[in-house]
Amino acid sequence: MRIKFLQEKLGPLEGWLTEDLIDIAYLTGLILSQGTFVCTKDGAQIFVDGRYTSYAKQNSPIPVGSENPENFFKAGTTVGFDKEKMSVSRHAKLRSDITWIASVNLVTRFIKDSSEQQLMRDAGLLAAKGMAFCKAALQPGVSEKEIADDLDYFFKKEGGEGAAFNSIIAFGENSAFPHHRPGSRRWEKGELVLIDIGATKARYQSDMTRTYLFDTKGELKKIYQTVEAAQKLALSICKPGAKIGDIDSAARTLIEKAGYGPLFCHGLGHGIGLEVHEFPSLKNKDPFKDIALESGMVITIEPGIYKAGLGGVRLEDTILITNQGYENLTCHGL
Amino acid sequence: MRIKFLQEKLGPLEGWLTEDLIDIAYLTGLILSQGTFVCTKDGAQIFVDGRYTSYAKQNSPIPVGSENPENFFKAGTTVGFDKEKMSVSRHAKLRSDITWIASVNLVTRFIKDSSEQQLMRDAGLLAAKGMAFCKAALQPGVSEKEIADDLDYFFKKEGGEGAAFNSIIAFGENSAFPHHRPGSRRWEKGELVLIDIGATKARYQSDMTRTYLFDTKGELKKIYQTVEAAQKLALSICKPGAKIGDIDSAARTLIEKAGYGPLFCHGLGHGIGLEVHEFPSLKNKDPFKDIALESGMVITIEPGIYKAGLGGVRLEDTILITNQGYENLTCHGL
Repeated sequence: MRIKFLQEKLGPLEGWLTEDLIDIAYLTGLILSQGTFVCTKDGAQIFVDGRYTSYAKQNSPIPVGSENPENFFKAGTTVGFDKEKMSVSRHAKLRSDITWIASVNLVTRFIKDSSEQQLMRDAGLLAAKGMAFCKAALQPGVSEKEIADDLDYFFKKEGGEGAAFNSIIAFGENSAFPHHRPGSRRWEKGELVLIDIGATKARYQSDMTRTYLFDTKGELKKIYQTVEAAQKLALSICKPGAKIGDIDSAARTLIEKAGYGPLFCHGLGHGIGLEVHEFPSLKNKDPFKDIALESGMVITIEPGIYKAGLGGVRLEDTILITNQGYENLTCHGL
Repeated sequence: MRIKFLQEKLGPLEGWLTEDLIDIAYLTGLILSQGTFVCTKDGAQIFVDGRYTSYAKQNSPIPVGSENPENFFKAGTTVGFDKEKMSVSRHAKLRSDITWIASVNLVTRFIKDSSEQQLMRDAGLLAAKGMAFCKAALQPGVSEKEIADDLDYFFKKEGGEGAAFNSIIAFGENSAFPHHRPGSRRWEKGELVLIDIGATKARYQSDMTRTYLFDTKGELKKIYQTVEAAQKLALSICKPGAKIGDIDSAARTLIEKAGYGPLFCHGLGHGIGLEVHEFPSLKNKDPFKDIALESGMVITIEPGIYKAGLGGVRLEDTILITNQGYENLTCHGL
């Protein structure tokens, strides 16, 4: 069905070639570390190396070819490829009697079908369980790395494949680095904690962040309230038809008005699915700002403010856009 | 020092640009999820996005630039980039008043310096400890996935970052898939087990495979002995000056003579370091066959024979090429 959908999108192209392993998994269900998928409007084949021949022959929904995948296409035809993924070197080696068209990726994965939506719900629920696990693990003396290591194992024991990315567990001033790597820093009671985690389950990914502020006085309190208001505002706009630029802009303007504009140093969020970062980025910039949300898209909403030496606050949920607005896949009361 | 070495290799080029995150980590020590490194013969800068600005400013050994990294170069200069890594799309967006040269990667990482050699030893020892852990975990009823999950946690608790890749734990007939993914298959006493694992420690990777054959009768015994002889033969040739094609060919010929040629369906090994698969591939094919081993290279030697329905045998070690020959980094009596 997904291959048929790709074939219908070819338009003036007579074929498509991809060596992107996530696209190949999406189209064929095959999990490879090397492979080439080719299709025309009425045919498709997969090519793998010797390590995967017997696996592919047993599991592929389309014929498994041998020799050069490019020979699947007739000389003189026009074939597209994803210009973001193919390397300059690979491009230079393509068969010269075919017209190759550098194209945006026609294997669009940003609208999740109903089975994918359920897998995203499962991955979201597992992330939330992981967040509760981290919160319970937060005892005086525990290190950032200990929590991150134990969380990954927890995800596996709960039926997932593990953490979707290197978990960010940041204590105190470490939280001012948006992509802090967990280290030997030990937690002291009362310190701020930023936890940015995601789970992989059945190959689908989730992403959520909570910041726990135990000291309810001082500037971090104001920062927290600002981020919380920005996330709430952005979420309230999320529904089919809402433009990405407007959503990012709403959250950013609120943070700017509170005086923290330059400290919100990243985009508002990103698409998520088989990859943690997928199309589109939630930024009020080209080529994203005029893209309208559609039912079935899954994105993150994650404003943050980071003050060097003091700490950072980020709040993030993974949400599914629905006809009515959105469904929060990671909140679960957390 | 590594940046200086790159600058000395520029030759006719006046500069270099890379966005490869492993190359950037190797050159600068910075661990990023996005960044651009640029250098000329007498200068270098790193460019990161807002998420990494404060981290880079605190940790970078070279100046942290802002705005467009390509503006580091003067108009009219000749700048190289790694043609295997840059995408067609990125290439099309490069500044047009610079002469960009698609080049083989000048950030060569295949000769490990003495500090890297020690890190590779550490990663190798951890893999061997992991192999002993897996062997001890092999009790009737245990599943492939249980061992894989527990091993990853073991690596973390032993001071590593975790498994270097998805561990391959294959019971019985599953071992006939060279890249089997561990599943719910449970072990029965006496079944063949193939374990292909590696550890990441201080960002360096190791890779080793053992096949445990409990039934010492039948064809699998012959297959095991053939693979064992092929690995032993290949290892005996490994020393500075030995050509990769000759090493692969020696192992392959021995397996062919035993009647299993078509069932050795992959290369003999690969370079390894900050990445599990690095330059060079150990294949008797261009562009690898005429490359001679040099002291300081770290490679794997991993012949295998896979018979569908019956099972597979692979034996693999990570070795460091020394002036005298090689040092086995993963054997440790296993």
